[in-house]
Amino acid sequence: MEYRKIKDEDDHDVASDIESVKGKSHTVASSNIAMATLGVGSSERINWKRKGVVTCALTILTSSQAILIVWSKRAGKYEYSVTTANFLVETLKCALSLLALTRIWKNEGVTDDNRLSTTYDEVKVFPIPAALYLFKNLLQYYIFAYVDAPGYQILKNLNIISTGVLYRIILKKKLSEIQWAGFILLCCGCTTAQLNSNSDRVLQTSLPGWTMAIVMALLSGFAGVYTEAIIKKRPSRNINVQNFWLYVFGMAFNAVAIVIQDFDAVANKGFFHGYSFITVLMILNHALSGIAVSMVMKYADNIVKVYSTSVAMLLTAVVSVFLFNFHLSLAFFLGSTVVSVSVYLHSAGKLR
Amino acid sequence: MEYRKIKDEDDHDVASDIESVKGKSHTVASSNIAMATLGVGSSERINWKRKGVVTCALTILTSSQAILIVWSKRAGKYEYSVTTANFLVETLKCALSLLALTRIWKNEGVTDDNRLSTTYDEVKVFPIPAALYLFKNLLQYYIFAYVDAPGYQILKNLNIISTGVLYRIILKKKLSEIQWAGFILLCCGCTTAQLNSNSDRVLQTSLPGWTMAIVMALLSGFAGVYTEAIIKKRPSRNINVQNFWLYVFGMAFNAVAIVIQDFDAVANKGFFHGYSFITVLMILNHALSGIAVSMVMKYADNIVKVYSTSVAMLLTAVVSVFLFNFHLSLAFFLGSTVVSVSVYLHSAGKLR
Repeated sequence: MEYRKIKDEDDHDVASDIESVKGKSHTVASSNIAMATLGVGSSERINWKRKGVVTCALTILTSSQAILIVWSKRAGKYEYSVTTANFLVETLKCALSLLALTRIWKNEGVTDDNRLSTTYDEVKVFPIPAALYLFKNLLQYYIFAYVDAPGYQILKNLNIISTGVLYRIILKKKLSEIQWAGFILLCCGCTTAQLNSNSDRVLQTSLPGWTMAIVMALLSGFAGVYTEAIIKKRPSRNINVQNFWLYVFGMAFNAVAIVIQDFDAVANKGFFHGYSFITVLMILNHALSGIAVSMVMKYADNIVKVYSTSVAMLLTAVVSVFLFNFHLSLAFFLGSTVVSVSVYLHSAGKLR
Repeated sequence: MEYRKIKDEDDHDVASDIESVKGKSHTVASSNIAMATLGVGSSERINWKRKGVVTCALTILTSSQAILIVWSKRAGKYEYSVTTANFLVETLKCALSLLALTRIWKNEGVTDDNRLSTTYDEVKVFPIPAALYLFKNLLQYYIFAYVDAPGYQILKNLNIISTGVLYRIILKKKLSEIQWAGFILLCCGCTTAQLNSNSDRVLQTSLPGWTMAIVMALLSGFAGVYTEAIIKKRPSRNINVQNFWLYVFGMAFNAVAIVIQDFDAVANKGFFHGYSFITVLMILNHALSGIAVSMVMKYADNIVKVYSTSVAMLLTAVVSVFLFNFHLSLAFFLGSTVVSVSVYLHSAGKLR
């Protein structure tokens, strides 16, 4: 019932949001042209540098995330409750955004763009991505009735395609044909790199399994694209303020998840039961990668985010060879080559 | 010793050939320009149509070739000697070329371009491709000491890369960067489509095994590119005359192979021992695809040939689902998608 309400709200807001984003992108484009004619080339260089830094940060953080998960799994099963950890991740992100803001206020003073107070009009769309992610995470418990875990890992690559399609439809941003070719290859390459002797089982997935996988891919793609729409709607607004509001709702929705899923465990064993040093590291890593995702949305886009996390997946495997004596398969080499060509095509195929 | 001599001759002729091909391609280019300025657009349309027809013929013949092999294997082991079959294939190709020529002589009369008699200068390079193929086929017996048969199938995809590189170096024809990306993808896609649970073994191939695989890929790529150089050296010369001389040397070298490998078997059991209806079909199919390869070399190029035979490999698998109840793997779907994108990139990336 509650999700229903969120979805309805959603549909309404997307339409209005598209208009705003379209309007804004015109403004951004024309201001870029103005800057270029004025010869402000260095501003573009700063933009490129910032885009590069946040993308690299996201790639490194995401790949170390997976390594921490492997590490924690080798040490045994999860002892802590995942929902409390997610709640702490959101809280930490909120705290870090506030910390960054206090420094900015000290240096630049409080302006319209960096003040924390907001309007209903600005804040009303911020709960939507958090709600979509919560909904997707709850669905995750049901899909395992239809697919096994490795099969789910393979089906998750549908996210790549759904993000591309929704990016085109919702943000109205165009990719060239060569870039689309690259995007299809990214999906194929990532899947190929993950192939193992049991992967063919995924072809026997039943219709409800496929439907759920596609719905989850659409939810995840939609949440990502919608976050970009929210953040880019007000380009001059400070990213830390935008993050703060995103994460406040993240905290709220994860508090709901604790109550739904882990109320008994938390009430009986305590909030921090089973936490270890590695749990703390994972929470820290998740918080930083969450902030990196927001930054990529602000200064680049969802396409860059998808490429970054895909390359991170390959990096993880390569690093695991040294850390955990992993053996790389022929499929991994083929998939990595396809992903590399795809990265090249994305940049070679840029619309002029 | 004999091979040594062939190789030396080879090195000499390649250099002179490159010059001739370069010269000729200038002539072809300028005659095309002349035609365009005269408004002879229909000639270009005829060229395109002819290119399309020979490429489709090659694709269909190659894919049915593989199906005939599966069919004959299911019926049991080869009973006949492979060298005698190869000799008959060359003989049939020679006969078909002569048949085509007699019809042309009847219709158009004997001209400088379609007369069978030749000069030492024209004919001296024709034995080289046949000699290279013979050398490669003999090497094939030795590589199985280092790789198993499915591993060899995977390593054979190195042909794709070697053909592209030698096409660039020997024929001096340029591919665009997008087309190179497509070519790397073609190699990855074909290999991915062939992956099975034992494919990873190929990564354990020893250094001599890799060396032999690379040498064989280079020999096969070189033979293909060299055939194109020979055929394109004299663009106005009738293709059936060029084929006749190519196949005459093919017959000669295969006769040598019979003596080296199967002399005892042929002497004791007879030339046609173990031939069946399916053997005759295979010989017919090989002869027709051989002619189709020559036609593709004349009217298109080695790159088109490689794409055509790669797509044929995928077609064979799809047809086998219906004929032999084959199951297609997830890897096959991924590989086929990558190959399809690669075909798109080859045409989208054309140099203007």
